[in-house]
Amino acid sequence: MPVVREKRENSLWLTEEQTEGLRLSLKVDDVVFRRRSEYQEILIVDTPEYGRVLVLDGAVQITERDEFCYSEMMAHVPLCAHPCPRRVLIAGGGDGAILREVLKHPEVERCVLLDIDREVVEASKLYMPWASARLEDPRADVKNVDAMEFIRRTDERFDAAIIDSTDPVDFAAGFFQAPFYSDVKGVLNEGGIVATLTESPFCDGALMRQAVSEMRSVFRNARVYWGAVPTYPSGMWTYCAASDSADPSVPLRTVHDARYYTEAVHRAAFVLPKFLAECFA
Amino acid sequence: MPVVREKRENSLWLTEEQTEGLRLSLKVDDVVFRRRSEYQEILIVDTPEYGRVLVLDGAVQITERDEFCYSEMMAHVPLCAHPCPRRVLIAGGGDGAILREVLKHPEVERCVLLDIDREVVEASKLYMPWASARLEDPRADVKNVDAMEFIRRTDERFDAAIIDSTDPVDFAAGFFQAPFYSDVKGVLNEGGIVATLTESPFCDGALMRQAVSEMRSVFRNARVYWGAVPTYPSGMWTYCAASDSADPSVPLRTVHDARYYTEAVHRAAFVLPKFLAECFA
Repeated sequence: MPVVREKRENSLWLTEEQTEGLRLSLKVDDVVFRRRSEYQEILIVDTPEYGRVLVLDGAVQITERDEFCYSEMMAHVPLCAHPCPRRVLIAGGGDGAILREVLKHPEVERCVLLDIDREVVEASKLYMPWASARLEDPRADVKNVDAMEFIRRTDERFDAAIIDSTDPVDFAAGFFQAPFYSDVKGVLNEGGIVATLTESPFCDGALMRQAVSEMRSVFRNARVYWGAVPTYPSGMWTYCAASDSADPSVPLRTVHDARYYTEAVHRAAFVLPKFLAECFA
Repeated sequence: MPVVREKRENSLWLTEEQTEGLRLSLKVDDVVFRRRSEYQEILIVDTPEYGRVLVLDGAVQITERDEFCYSEMMAHVPLCAHPCPRRVLIAGGGDGAILREVLKHPEVERCVLLDIDREVVEASKLYMPWASARLEDPRADVKNVDAMEFIRRTDERFDAAIIDSTDPVDFAAGFFQAPFYSDVKGVLNEGGIVATLTESPFCDGALMRQAVSEMRSVFRNARVYWGAVPTYPSGMWTYCAASDSADPSVPLRTVHDARYYTEAVHRAAFVLPKFLAECFA
């Protein structure tokens, strides 16, 4: 008798080790791009669950379906809390998704984006138009340089800065520390506001508390806010927005064409669940 | 030469297929309990990431570390929106976590908990004291009966009802439909409030919209709210609270000893990200 083997689909999965004991796996339809750049392992895959996904060194950076949750809260909270943000700085964010949100503000005349890895920018232009569409906008100035060094040396001043770094390993660790926050403060105009990611209270609680504490040591008003980002560890994501004179929790303007952000969402994001507020007490 | 094999740790993982293309995996230290009851496969494991975890038919129900996010928002939103909730009904919730939250309200004189599966209740008493601690409280009346049938037949009336069903497969599908919501309305006192889970907009959008639409067809004020629950699909979880006369989005009282809930969190939870609000427009 011939053995009849049931036909099964080939099954390819992207698995991120979010922590030592936690993994998120996305089924993969296609591997779109895979390359080791000078700085990191770049991987772009198509998934049925979250659309196209950018992965750097094994960590999901953005997905087509949920990146708006992150990109909008990183961009619109600092920009809407500023009365007229003309010049904006983005450290990291080479995929262009946050830049796309920044340029939705008609007040913005110039946005400097600093991503050390030119290959991330190029791959995004080729394969992720929904993220990269505005990378060649005349108001955008994309520089493939070391963001920390640039910020230390530049004479340019900004109304808002957005720190969209990768996770704090290797060359990105400094993005979560006071000396860097202090340099960022140095390039802000009077009334300037900075926003940064501060990870998840469930998966990176110690790092979150540390980053916020360092922000507080540098800025007079450093305020934590939070939102959902399904493909980031635990899905509960925190941010910190800070300024020496502005109150980042109060929106002064709004933005059109948003999918996550509203002025009410801006205010509500600063209302922290009790356990989260207690992390910073 | 003898072959020297590096000693490696045995690695055991619990993997939930949250959707066809999405899996969440938790490293497992110990399998605490595993048994097929009359109704479902019951599994309790210890994990380094989320502590002790209850799994029913392959779906994570509650974890020691994050269940407060869910239990508190299911219990305190309807109870705090009521001026004096004396009698409370819980459909499902045999682990006891929501009951524990309900009994934090000194106004509550009696809480009837309906879970068809006695073995879930017993396993929780034995292995999850942090959830089950109040199952034998004199104010609690735990009945191992079919919740739908009980609600259809009972003469008792309640000030608040909480529907903590498993996912809408098999015998639990009816928990997400208008005929059941209508029966629940029938056991509510004047001013009574019901809260139910309505799944994730990212992983179960169609079901979420359908459940809310059925709630709206039955109650005059059916309001969606949301919160973080890291171990539920996408981590972004929605709920619907409804009443014919009360406004569930307005807290009238507060509760002590909460870890997620505050009155401000109650209000903020009804501020929906734009894409979520548009699901119900």
